[in-house]
Amino acid sequence: MPDSSLLETFATPTVSPFVIEHTNEEFTSVCPKTGHPDFGEIILRYVPAETCVELKSLKLYYQSFRNEGIFYEAVTNAIRDDLVARLNPKWLQVVTVWRGRGGIRSRIFASHGEVPSEWKRG
Amino acid sequence: MPDSSLLETFATPTVSPFVIEHTNEEFTSVCPKTGHPDFGEIILRYVPAETCVELKSLKLYYQSFRNEGIFYEAVTNAIRDDLVARLNPKWLQVVTVWRGRGGIRSRIFASHGEVPSEWKRG
Amino acid sequence: MPDSSLLETFATPTVSPFVIEHTNEEFTSVCPKTGHPDFGEIILRYVPAETCVELKSLKLYYQSFRNEGIFYEAVTNAIRDDLVARLNPKWLQVVTVWRGRGGIRSRIFASHGEVPSEWKRG
Amino acid sequence: MPDSSLLETFATPTVSPFVIEHTNEEFTSVCPKTGHPDFGEIILRYVPAETCVELKSLKLYYQSFRNEGIFYEAVTNAIRDDLVARLNPKWLQVVTVWRGRGGIRSRIFASHGEVPSEWKRG
Amino acid sequence: MPDSSLLETFATPTVSPFVIEHTNEEFTSVCPKTGHPDFGEIILRYVPAETCVELKSLKLYYQSFRNEGIFYEAVTNAIRDDLVARLNPKWLQVVTVWRGRGGIRSRIFASHGEVPSEWKRG
Amino acid sequence: MPDSSLLETFATPTVSPFVIEHTNEEFTSVCPKTGHPDFGEIILRYVPAETCVELKSLKLYYQSFRNEGIFYEAVTNAIRDDLVARLNPKWLQVVTVWRGRGGIRSRIFASHGEVPSEWKRG
Amino acid sequence: MPDSSLLETFATPTVSPFVIEHTNEEFTSVCPKTGHPDFGEIILRYVPAETCVELKSLKLYYQSFRNEGIFYEAVTNAIRDDLVARLNPKWLQVVTVWRGRGGIRSRIFASHGEVPSEWKRG
Amino acid sequence: MPDSSLLETFATPTVSPFVIEHTNEEFTSVCPKTGHPDFGEIILRYVPAETCVELKSLKLYYQSFRNEGIFYEAVTNAIRDDLVARLNPKWLQVVTVWRGRGGIRSRIFASHGEVPSEWKRG
Amino acid sequence: MPDSSLLETFATPTVSPFVIEHTNEEFTSVCPKTGHPDFGEIILRYVPAETCVELKSLKLYYQSFRNEGIFYEAVTNAIRDDLVARLNPKWLQVVTVWRGRGGIRSRIFASHGEVPSEWKRG
Amino acid sequence: MPDSSLLETFATPTVSPFVIEHTNEEFTSVCPKTGHPDFGEIILRYVPAETCVELKSLKLYYQSFRNEGIFYEAVTNAIRDDLVARLNPKWLQVVTVWRGRGGIRSRIFASHGEVPSEWKRG
Repeated sequence: MPDSSLLETFATPTVSPFVIEHTNEEFTSVCPKTGHPDFGEIILRYVPAETCVELKSLKLYYQSFRNEGIFYEAVTNAIRDDLVARLNPKWLQVVTVWRGRGGIRSRIFASHGEVPSEWKRG
Repeated sequence: MPDSSLLETFATPTVSPFVIEHTNEEFTSVCPKTGHPDFGEIILRYVPAETCVELKSLKLYYQSFRNEGIFYEAVTNAIRDDLVARLNPKWLQVVTVWRGRGGIRSRIFASHGEVPSEWKRG
Repeated sequence: MPDSSLLETFATPTVSPFVIEHTNEEFTSVCPKTGHPDFGEIILRYVPAETCVELKSLKLYYQSFRNEGIFYEAVTNAIRDDLVARLNPKWLQVVTVWRGRGGIRSRIFASHGEVPSEWKRG
Repeated sequence: MPDSSLLETFATPTVSPFVIEHTNEEFTSVCPKTGHPDFGEIILRYVPAETCVELKSLKLYYQSFRNEGIFYEAVTNAIRDDLVARLNPKWLQVVTVWRGRGGIRSRIFASHGEVPSEWKRG
Repeated sequence: MPDSSLLETFATPTVSPFVIEHTNEEFTSVCPKTGHPDFGEIILRYVPAETCVELKSLKLYYQSFRNEGIFYEAVTNAIRDDLVARLNPKWLQVVTVWRGRGGIRSRIFASHGEVPSEWKRG
Repeated sequence: MPDSSLLETFATPTVSPFVIEHTNEEFTSVCPKTGHPDFGEIILRYVPAETCVELKSLKLYYQSFRNEGIFYEAVTNAIRDDLVARLNPKWLQVVTVWRGRGGIRSRIFASHGEVPSEWKRG
Repeated sequence: MPDSSLLETFATPTVSPFVIEHTNEEFTSVCPKTGHPDFGEIILRYVPAETCVELKSLKLYYQSFRNEGIFYEAVTNAIRDDLVARLNPKWLQVVTVWRGRGGIRSRIFASHGEVPSEWKRG
Repeated sequence: MPDSSLLETFATPTVSPFVIEHTNEEFTSVCPKTGHPDFGEIILRYVPAETCVELKSLKLYYQSFRNEGIFYEAVTNAIRDDLVARLNPKWLQVVTVWRGRGGIRSRIFASHGEVPSEWKRG
Repeated sequence: MPDSSLLETFATPTVSPFVIEHTNEEFTSVCPKTGHPDFGEIILRYVPAETCVELKSLKLYYQSFRNEGIFYEAVTNAIRDDLVARLNPKWLQVVTVWRGRGGIRSRIFASHGEVPSEWKRG
Repeated sequence: MPDSSLLETFATPTVSPFVIEHTNEEFTSVCPKTGHPDFGEIILRYVPAETCVELKSLKLYYQSFRNEGIFYEAVTNAIRDDLVARLNPKWLQVVTVWRGRGGIRSRIFASHGEVPSEWKRG
């Protein structure tokens, strides 16, 4: 099940603000309604305040959703909440991109703080 | 015929605003003038207020246009009206993308409320 | 329902063999199991013997499947049979390309006579 | 020769503003200097006030340029003028995209009224 | 765990040979060495003898590998063996396409019977 | 109207056989049934015997079809016949690629002499 | 050597402002340091005041750089200066796009007057 | 090891501001944690004040990271700092684009001075 | 330096022949003439006799070329020889794809045993 | 002017046959009829007998055509002849790919010895 304690951090290497983007192309969870797997991509963007998320721990955190039954909208907001709690970033954005189900593809955009306009379209 | 009673909703999982996008690549209706089928794509974007549209019910709603004779401009505005009535969203945008007829491809953009600038191009 | 009497023909303009290919990107029928629409593309290739199929009549013939409940494999073989009966071509190939269902895309290849090797992959 | 009387209109289906885009991928006219044909694409975007342009009549209007000798810049402005006169839209934009001549591709952007910033790049 | 009893079949609709191709873009299993998930695509091609595989049952069969620890080479040959046992096809080909691991992407090609030359490259 | 006297030739620069391919992306003629323009691409391939076709004259020859009412199948065979008569090549292939009409795209393949297998797919 | 006297102009066909874009995909000059040729693309955009640049003369002007030894930065600013002097436009932008040298691709952006924000990224 | 003394400069050819972009598609360094090589792309954009960076020296500077153990975030900020110290530009942006590790691709955006909004997305 | 002792193997999971393809997109070595790094892609294909190459060991083997001065032609043949010696495969093919140097991209194809025709083009 | 004495060679590193492919994306010569520059790509493929062509010398040889007035067909055969004379290869193929002139793109294929079927399409 999703486990935010997997997330590890390290101190940001500089005090001048910079943007970090990590795109995980291999996310999977389970639809709580049908029991079928969902496949998607998770795009994370943020400006660190004091800490950055360590990349391998982020991967393990995402893998902890593998057998979780959870809707698109809920998983997107859950990841946003977990990362904000752990990183306390200046701003943070989570975009999830889901492969088609019944001919419908979906994207969900959740954010924390003031996402600059150039990133709002995901 | 188009049937907005097919649309089901569920409570939004969070009070913090987030954007939802559903892209249906398999829309078809009928041209009322020629009787030939039209094929297109429907992009829906919105920020939920209290409710979200359930994905399978959205698909069934779109399928209810299958044998309806209706122009591009009318179907786009009808979908916008039906979804706004059902969801009462903070804002909502419907973009329809139509395959070529006689060498002319078309897109129609209808909206409700204040669509943020980053989404106005569809 | 599918209606092969819609197919019209005209005399081939030359006795020297040549290949004709028509690709219909806007085919739809209905899944007999679920009742959901299927969307696909139909590629037709043949060498005429004495007659060619008229393009607009081919389009109307394809449209006659719109509300027919029929499986991928069956529709491909039915189109092959109808066209062979009407055209009596030197050879003929029908390839159907279906959009994903539950994450699985499909193609079906049916043929009549000796399809040259360069076309066998569809 | 170009004939704006071919343009037919119909009443807009809604009073709430919406954007209509028609892209004609098959435009041709003739270079008045060399006599060689020019090939291009015409993108039309507008917000209707009271009337919309009927699609088939738009196609016939574009075809009326087929044997006209006219420069890129002039044809773009002429189409803008004809459509504005006929539709009296809230705003309207015409973008012409021309295939290369001597290794140089061109685009011309003409407009009427206040084109919103999201569309200014064509 | 992998469960070939999930595979259901139906009688082929025609006696004349034809090719069926199903591409599953959403396959996942687990690396038995590292415990990390593997993500890939499974392409199945065959000419039915008497029976075809039912599409939804094929999807469920593929899903049964979700938490199985198994190498690329083994999963490809296992799927080939299960489908040949169930379908007894004239020929059958399984191609697995794996996303990169450590910068290396892989494909594995297994087959049964005489795969025609036009399909040998996958 | 089509005018094969526009075709000019020059002596081949070498006696060792070599393949020449000219692709005209800007072909247009008129549908004799509807009067609407057709737009397409003409691919010419041949091995010269003693003469090659001069490129600018080929362009003018293609332009002579601009206002001719002629079907896809007929124009392809006519171009093949005109070029064979003028060039007497070792082999020659004409492939025409037509943009969609009513959602159907077409290609026609005509040839003279023994087209090597690597070119048969156009 | 570069010769701005090659540039010819014609009167703009309309007083209402419109944007003109010419993209030359076949530019070449010589690196003054190594003597090797540089290959690139020149994108020109401007709003004419009273005159437009004639297309064939623009091509000849670009060709006059063919054997000139000149750096990326200098050629971009030189073209900007020559065109501004000749056209006196409302605004003008020159973007040069250079193929890789030693694995590094480059773009240079020079402008005159107030380039609207939608064009600033080239 | 990284060596900023490799960076050479030349005087800017013009006092009017212009943007320079150099994209190095062949960057490699080493992950300090695993010892495995990292591969990426470095995009540099700046408006020169008085000096520009010489292209070959930039390539040699990037090559000096080849066997350096350094994290994504640190290398991006180090390149930004070195180039700002050497060029003293009006503004400068460094975007690093990293190939996937364990299915996660990354981009890091560092900057100096006021990067105009049209470039902020990298 | 290149070290073939890094290559580890495992027993093939089946006696029926099947094709394995591993594509390494992140290969780098050094040009022995200029000292500049070369970047490329290595495609390996083979049919195992009794053993398969273990994927992580293959990656480490490729990394051992990182600081080796060696020409394109030599590295391709060296990898072929090392893998043949270790695997004794039924057939094996190594294709190296090199990014441009001075505007010239290269590919080298080396093989062992009888590569089937469908793979000869790489 | 074209100067085959620029071509340098080195001994092939292995006696087992292998294919070498060099693609020059930056070729230019001059049309002898119009004086306008032609731009193209040269693909060279061969199996060395005893010697290989050195890459930088090949680039300089190609550059020697820069200001030569020569037709497509002639330059292709000239390059084939020069390289065959210098390398005496087992087989050799030269494919030239030319950007459009008046809307017509061209390719010319010249060869020496027995080019294997998998390469005949260029």
